[in-house]
Amino acid sequence: MSIRSKITYTFTDEAPALATYSLLPIVKAFAASAGIDVETRDISLAGRILASFADKLGDKAIEDDLAYLAQLATAPQANIIKLPNISASVPQLKGAIAELQKLGYAVPDFPEDPQTDEEKETRARYAKVLGSAVNPVLREGNSDRRAPAAVKAYARKHPHSMGKWSMASRSHADYMRGGDFFSSEQSVTIPKAGDVRIEFVGKDGKVETKKTLKMQEGEVLDSMFMSCSKLRAFFEKTLQDCKETGVMWSLHVKATMMKISHPIVFGHAVTVYYKDVFEKYGQLFEELGVNPNNGISSVYDKIKSLPASQQEEILHDIHEVYSHRPEMAMVDSVKGITNLHIPSDVIVDASMPAMIRNSGQMWGKDGKQKDTKAVMPESTYARIYQEMINFCKTNGAFDPTTMGSVPNVGLMAQKAEEYGSHDKTFELEADGVMRVVDADGKILMQHEVQAGDIWRACQTKDAPIRDWVKLAVTRARASNTPAIFWLDPERAHDNELRKKVELYLKDHDLTGLDISIKGYNEAIRTSMERQMRGLDTISVTGNVLRDYLTDLFPIMELGTSAKMLSIVPLMAGGGMYETGAGGSAPKHVQQLVEENYLRWDSLGEFLALAVSLEEEGIKTDNAKAKVLGKTLDIATGKLLDNNKSPSRKIGEIDNRGSHFYLAMYWAQALAEQNDDAELKAHFAPLAKTLTEKEATIVAELNGVQGKPADIGGYYRSNPELTSQVMRPSATFNAAIDALA
Amino acid sequence: MSIRSKITYTFTDEAPALATYSLLPIVKAFAASAGIDVETRDISLAGRILASFADKLGDKAIEDDLAYLAQLATAPQANIIKLPNISASVPQLKGAIAELQKLGYAVPDFPEDPQTDEEKETRARYAKVLGSAVNPVLREGNSDRRAPAAVKAYARKHPHSMGKWSMASRSHADYMRGGDFFSSEQSVTIPKAGDVRIEFVGKDGKVETKKTLKMQEGEVLDSMFMSCSKLRAFFEKTLQDCKETGVMWSLHVKATMMKISHPIVFGHAVTVYYKDVFEKYGQLFEELGVNPNNGISSVYDKIKSLPASQQEEILHDIHEVYSHRPEMAMVDSVKGITNLHIPSDVIVDASMPAMIRNSGQMWGKDGKQKDTKAVMPESTYARIYQEMINFCKTNGAFDPTTMGSVPNVGLMAQKAEEYGSHDKTFELEADGVMRVVDADGKILMQHEVQAGDIWRACQTKDAPIRDWVKLAVTRARASNTPAIFWLDPERAHDNELRKKVELYLKDHDLTGLDISIKGYNEAIRTSMERQMRGLDTISVTGNVLRDYLTDLFPIMELGTSAKMLSIVPLMAGGGMYETGAGGSAPKHVQQLVEENYLRWDSLGEFLALAVSLEEEGIKTDNAKAKVLGKTLDIATGKLLDNNKSPSRKIGEIDNRGSHFYLAMYWAQALAEQNDDAELKAHFAPLAKTLTEKEATIVAELNGVQGKPADIGGYYRSNPELTSQVMRPSATFNAAIDALA
Repeated sequence: MSIRSKITYTFTDEAPALATYSLLPIVKAFAASAGIDVETRDISLAGRILASFADKLGDKAIEDDLAYLAQLATAPQANIIKLPNISASVPQLKGAIAELQKLGYAVPDFPEDPQTDEEKETRARYAKVLGSAVNPVLREGNSDRRAPAAVKAYARKHPHSMGKWSMASRSHADYMRGGDFFSSEQSVTIPKAGDVRIEFVGKDGKVETKKTLKMQEGEVLDSMFMSCSKLRAFFEKTLQDCKETGVMWSLHVKATMMKISHPIVFGHAVTVYYKDVFEKYGQLFEELGVNPNNGISSVYDKIKSLPASQQEEILHDIHEVYSHRPEMAMVDSVKGITNLHIPSDVIVDASMPAMIRNSGQMWGKDGKQKDTKAVMPESTYARIYQEMINFCKTNGAFDPTTMGSVPNVGLMAQKAEEYGSHDKTFELEADGVMRVVDADGKILMQHEVQAGDIWRACQTKDAPIRDWVKLAVTRARASNTPAIFWLDPERAHDNELRKKVELYLKDHDLTGLDISIKGYNEAIRTSMERQMRGLDTISVTGNVLRDYLTDLFPIMELGTSAKMLSIVPLMAGGGMYETGAGGSAPKHVQQLVEENYLRWDSLGEFLALAVSLEEEGIKTDNAKAKVLGKTLDIATGKLLDNNKSPSRKIGEIDNRGSHFYLAMYWAQALAEQNDDAELKAHFAPLAKTLTEKEATIVAELNGVQGKPADIGGYYRSNPELTSQVMRPSATFNAAIDALA
Repeated sequence: MSIRSKITYTFTDEAPALATYSLLPIVKAFAASAGIDVETRDISLAGRILASFADKLGDKAIEDDLAYLAQLATAPQANIIKLPNISASVPQLKGAIAELQKLGYAVPDFPEDPQTDEEKETRARYAKVLGSAVNPVLREGNSDRRAPAAVKAYARKHPHSMGKWSMASRSHADYMRGGDFFSSEQSVTIPKAGDVRIEFVGKDGKVETKKTLKMQEGEVLDSMFMSCSKLRAFFEKTLQDCKETGVMWSLHVKATMMKISHPIVFGHAVTVYYKDVFEKYGQLFEELGVNPNNGISSVYDKIKSLPASQQEEILHDIHEVYSHRPEMAMVDSVKGITNLHIPSDVIVDASMPAMIRNSGQMWGKDGKQKDTKAVMPESTYARIYQEMINFCKTNGAFDPTTMGSVPNVGLMAQKAEEYGSHDKTFELEADGVMRVVDADGKILMQHEVQAGDIWRACQTKDAPIRDWVKLAVTRARASNTPAIFWLDPERAHDNELRKKVELYLKDHDLTGLDISIKGYNEAIRTSMERQMRGLDTISVTGNVLRDYLTDLFPIMELGTSAKMLSIVPLMAGGGMYETGAGGSAPKHVQQLVEENYLRWDSLGEFLALAVSLEEEGIKTDNAKAKVLGKTLDIATGKLLDNNKSPSRKIGEIDNRGSHFYLAMYWAQALAEQNDDAELKAHFAPLAKTLTEKEATIVAELNGVQGKPADIGGYYRSNPELTSQVMRPSATFNAAIDALA
């Protein structure tokens, strides 16, 4: 072996973490044959909490793996396989803290209402753990997401179910026509590096600096605000409209990613819908610490401390609301959990495709599907869903057996376009002016605002834009597919970007390429028209559309976004390979614990690993790594063809069984290939063993199902217990261990 | 007076003809002052019938004015003002024949089922009188239609009513997804002049020549067919769908313009909807001569000859149909007249804008507005209505106070794109192949067809296309407005045209112009998006879209298409000025006869006359004519501002009163102008008289209202009687006569 190189595999949360216990030993054993080490790095929610408080944990302190990975991402040799992790909401964070404390880690409580300096500092540390805390740090490159050929072929042969669309459907997406971020957006390109200040000027003329931002030359800076009064009026109008038309009401926001602005938006929806209750009990709720931004569930939680009769009265009044408000879409109609229960339940990028796939309908309280008004206050991106709904009304549901694909090249690097999250979003406490001022005191942008309005700024650096343009051209060339830059002429930000895109496109040879720039409606419409005719179109988008579209189109095409190849070609030269975009599947953990069955499909990991190996082979001139990658792709194709993904039925293969089949097909493919004799010889015995012992191994793997399984924890399960649960076949374990 | 030139004013039918009796004396008197003669030419339905049988009428024979005008249209000095005339259906034709016979004209009966050679010859002559018989003959130029500035300004100040749109509306336009003309269209450009044959090849191999066409070099020839079985299956599917969803069913065709193909399509709708009745009474109906292509009214007509009990039974069975078919949109819910009553009642280009203006709803049998499935089998153009419906669902109704305008430059000259009418449409009697073969025997196009299918060909000559491109560039330049060629990449015909357009655009200086080519959906969407933002966009379209869009957009913008300026710059250098596109208003005649009130608004005539005078001034270097044109525009603006159009209320001014005000304002404007002293002096006395006697004249004009009026006929009213009715003010008549 001439070289030893390294692939970094992330350890995350919930189902993907469980799957890792089963898959990683296989991966390590195979990779070793090409001289590649596979290291793991812990970026789970629990791990991030522990790393944040390392100074307080004594000998239980752990290394800050996220910081390590952030460093690695800017190094040319980076080869990172990134699994989905929890974007934590406050309730999740508190759950993890409690579990860690139980395990003996001296992490502090989450200060709901920090008063002392210490509490404030603790709160600040936890703030960094909340929401999309990992991705913005690691994503030192832009995004390249697409359906691998094998996956697309499989979907065409075995189409997922699609609800029919009626031309008479009443469903639609409704959004604000003014007063939202879209209509107030301003944008400037910073001509020279320097600080800019975000200031609030009160009615009394007093200037308060809310934040100072370091800007690079050529960086694009946006500012915008959502009017609280217009937002509330909009919610009320949508409710009245649903009441009149009989269409069900449903809210779709992105409280996880846009972790400051969208919970507030969500909270307004709660207090408008339950207006009567919040008016009647306003003061009491305040005393109890009810926070509508956490959903109506916050009321249920907090009133538990009240006498039974008073609880009764409040619950009665909540019930009364339903009699004069329109019917609301349910997240879980059996458990009576509505759309307004908690903010993380209806996440627009996942919930809207699900609704569109489901004939444009959501579930009512009687468990029946109904036409729905999907309320998405901010119009910037909501319009694309209305466009798709109109398209489905006109042309019927998409047909997975014939439809073309819409891969995505997304602007993402260096926290590009991180709207509404983190440190540049403010819920205003008074009327006044929010403005952005440069070092020379020049006012770059300003908005007249009122108390309650949500104001936010957003940065996008120049180098990532240039890299994004390059990636778009590269992908258009490599796949010989038309590419559309989604830049809306109605958006100030997009018009700044457009200038750069037009400039940077000149750096490339565009001969024979079909590259255009279109507004959002036109872009999605063109893509859908082509898709209907079986044609592919690359969507080249900003960060939010990247997030939305890489759920929307895959869910139409493949039934899930988890089967997408998701590559982040890092700007420094390395690569990060994300495994699916399907979240970390908390329900799967529950099922494993209850009946020792893990539904999680590791297809995303298989696909990512194959590209990771291939890239490692190219970059380090490691022929064996290339063969490993190529044969892994063959194995994955065979696995799909033979339907060896988790079956979802107890007694049939689950995640562990599918890992076995992957290992078997991979070993077979290596034993059958003739590109590398050493590998052929090395894997022939394993191929033979696994093939011969298939029945035994599957019986061992499936035999454990149906009973509860103890993994000793949720956010930080016990490694030994989990490994035992996830590797229940002695025969299979022995065969893999023998490879080393 | 240095020159005497001539404007030709057409005499037509119904309301416009009645209005002419009042307006023409005024026009003649004013025009004479600039040395311009105004001649009239009779192109009324009655006139055309008489001209067609001149050889049989002895001393009652009249000159063929349509033939005269056709000649004139190809002469450079042509200056024709063309009023709306009847596009006759068979029932209208028969009515006119009966009236003429009563007046003593020896015109033959209309042979329903011609047997003898004489009957066949008679039928052939009448065939030329039916449908759009005038326009294709006179339109020796392309079309330039737009809202004059004064009209647009008036509409913005005094917006017409617009029904609100709900996002939850269930209304939509439904159309075939295969088996229609659109999906079978083939198109070729003829490389050299010569004959081509349309042939039918039977299953036995026998070749029948259906028609020989003389083709010019560079002419575009299309062929296409609609599958009878797929059409009927489509109708049945739409009915089932409406039954399921509860949305009302409505049919929208263009049986007048596409006078061969669309009555057949209509007939299939009738026999599918009333399937049970037509199955049960098939043979009886055949014996009775029921023709479903004339609507269900044909059944009502023909069964009158049956015994009462049998009639009763059939009517009962018709009634039964309604109990299991979906509710049908009504043309007149009071009289119980449905959408399937007669083919000319729901003409797509007028009925669809009305529906869209009316919140996307039509009227049910209970007289209430309801969401509707607008069934338009052929998808070629139907898609634009669905696009507009989706647009209104998303953005709400158009706002006439702010919306931009969509003027049209339409390809029309030399019978371009006369789809489905006249002599190139065939309802096939047997299975086989329809094909187009050139002089060398080369098969240019062919379709496999079945008995009942409707096959049609269509010609578009090269010179008109070149002229159309030129007109588009001219209008884009003159109005500094973006122009979009509506050419659909999915249509074979449009792809042939596109090549020519791209070539002929090179003949022009396009510097600074925004000219693009888009598919229909994209074109209408772009136009609507701009319109919503107050921006104008010229639609450059083929003949059918010209017809549709010059109703659709004007009805949204102005509430009517009758206020449009409609110019045909003739290819030979002359000009034809069409007065509105609002039809010839039969109901207005009825009102005049019953209560001596004529609602017809002559605004279209005023606008056309002003351009006609201005053009005459330019072409013959007649300064006085230019002054007449300019002052007429001032008078029209004043008339609109002072609300002197017909009021629609008995006792207030009608068509005649508005003519008086026009004359007064025109005379005042001439008396006030200083460009031409002679005209100033000439009109000062008239201005004085009319101003002073306004009250007297209006009293005389309005005084006759409220009682029946005798005009001695419908299709050919008595000229003396009509003139008396239409010029009831002795004071006004004397003032005008004094001008001469």
